[in-house]
Amino acid sequence: MKWKRSERLVDMTHYLLEHPQQLIPLTYFAETYEAAKSSISEDLVIVKETFEEKGIGLLQTVPGAAGGVKYIPNMTEQAVRAVMDELISELSSSDRLLPGGYLFMTDLLGNPELMNRVGKVFASAFKGEKIDVIMTVATKGIPIAHAIARHLNVPVVIVRRDSKVTEGSTVSINYVTGSSRRIQTMVLSKRSMKSGQRVLITDDFMKVGGTMNGMKNLLEEFNCTLAGVAVLVEAEHHEERLVDDFLSLVKLQGVNERDRSITLGEGNYFSKRGES
Amino acid sequence: MKWKRSERLVDMTHYLLEHPQQLIPLTYFAETYEAAKSSISEDLVIVKETFEEKGIGLLQTVPGAAGGVKYIPNMTEQAVRAVMDELISELSSSDRLLPGGYLFMTDLLGNPELMNRVGKVFASAFKGEKIDVIMTVATKGIPIAHAIARHLNVPVVIVRRDSKVTEGSTVSINYVTGSSRRIQTMVLSKRSMKSGQRVLITDDFMKVGGTMNGMKNLLEEFNCTLAGVAVLVEAEHHEERLVDDFLSLVKLQGVNERDRSITLGEGNYFSKRGES
Repeated sequence: MKWKRSERLVDMTHYLLEHPQQLIPLTYFAETYEAAKSSISEDLVIVKETFEEKGIGLLQTVPGAAGGVKYIPNMTEQAVRAVMDELISELSSSDRLLPGGYLFMTDLLGNPELMNRVGKVFASAFKGEKIDVIMTVATKGIPIAHAIARHLNVPVVIVRRDSKVTEGSTVSINYVTGSSRRIQTMVLSKRSMKSGQRVLITDDFMKVGGTMNGMKNLLEEFNCTLAGVAVLVEAEHHEERLVDDFLSLVKLQGVNERDRSITLGEGNYFSKRGES
Repeated sequence: MKWKRSERLVDMTHYLLEHPQQLIPLTYFAETYEAAKSSISEDLVIVKETFEEKGIGLLQTVPGAAGGVKYIPNMTEQAVRAVMDELISELSSSDRLLPGGYLFMTDLLGNPELMNRVGKVFASAFKGEKIDVIMTVATKGIPIAHAIARHLNVPVVIVRRDSKVTEGSTVSINYVTGSSRRIQTMVLSKRSMKSGQRVLITDDFMKVGGTMNGMKNLLEEFNCTLAGVAVLVEAEHHEERLVDDFLSLVKLQGVNERDRSITLGEGNYFSKRGES
């Protein structure tokens, strides 16, 4: 088959989107489409301009023999705000209020299209950082972790509350939960990380940050470094927080169980990124 | 901005890939690009031919006023075999063997690129079925469930072993595990499914099928119907299986702990689909 430019553009777009954060040599495209590198370069200019114009992401070109092109998922501020607004609007519904002032969020975490966008939001924030692994704790953080990981093209490791035979040998630590101050255990398979890796921690909800802090301690056991913390919903509270440096999309400002009202606002995503 | 065909093709490809299994009216594209519907139709012919030629998927055009275009993720037999071969080759490594004859698979389940392809494999098999929900049990099935769900554009519900305050009121059942014949409990949030929904069940591993059978029983409590069962790895065994009608990608034929060998073969994906 001899490829026309129009066909190359369709296939190239698909290929780049499926291989985020990977350097693809121009020769790969030149050979796939049996086209001159100069034609491929012209194609890539069109893809790049469209990706940037439509807020799909960035296309980074690395010149030279070892060069190529890399698709970097990136969302516009407007698109990030749209995700925040959607989350806030969904979460403010009073039928989400559970006994004890908890919010029901499981359906949102089970929406793959929304999770894909949430993942892209956080991947945009951390696109410049070196990240080797995304870590979360079972169960509710897993969809967020996988969504971020897909856009950053790195593996996910899952911390568990209990050790399972299918995990092989594990490292286990005790930690203190934030609000209720109970001692809990978390366990991670020894094979999941290598010494020296940079780890992005994520979860669906954070109040005092006890679980996050537990994961931070677990990183030390593996001689790994914290690269960042991404939280879907942070809850406002007045004690000292155990984790300071995090990004959140939504802030739960208050819950009134008597009149069944929920007060939500934007998380620190923009204010925190502005600081750095 | 006035859109050129080449730019429309790039953006359209992205949009279709991000909205699988959704009927998109031609007017949406005509308005977005300020182009005549006839031009959009010509664009879509190019996208359709490229998607089919490269095995990206199908583009279904629905004529008429309520019509539009739908991207249906679909993998070629060759691409499915490549995923199976990769899984078999990865899993045959003897250092995956755990005490008790279990296989370590957690790293594969944590690989978002591989999971994306596994999800597309199963989404291809079930593309013609009406599926409303993907169900799995925590923890290891979650990445597979979300990957399938993304390609079929349906929500994920997660069955748990224990009830959590953040799930609201739940339905709980007891079931008998397959191999060890212990009684266990599984719990699902009442809000997760509506009566009458068709549910695809998935998990990473199945031997006798006790957990799968438990999920089937749970469906009945919600007045929902089983639409299919998708398993990453099935283990060969000689007792009666509790679940017959399933698709698998890999079959674990045997494990020899003494000489640390693992025997794997293709799952029933092709043979089973051939039957129906």
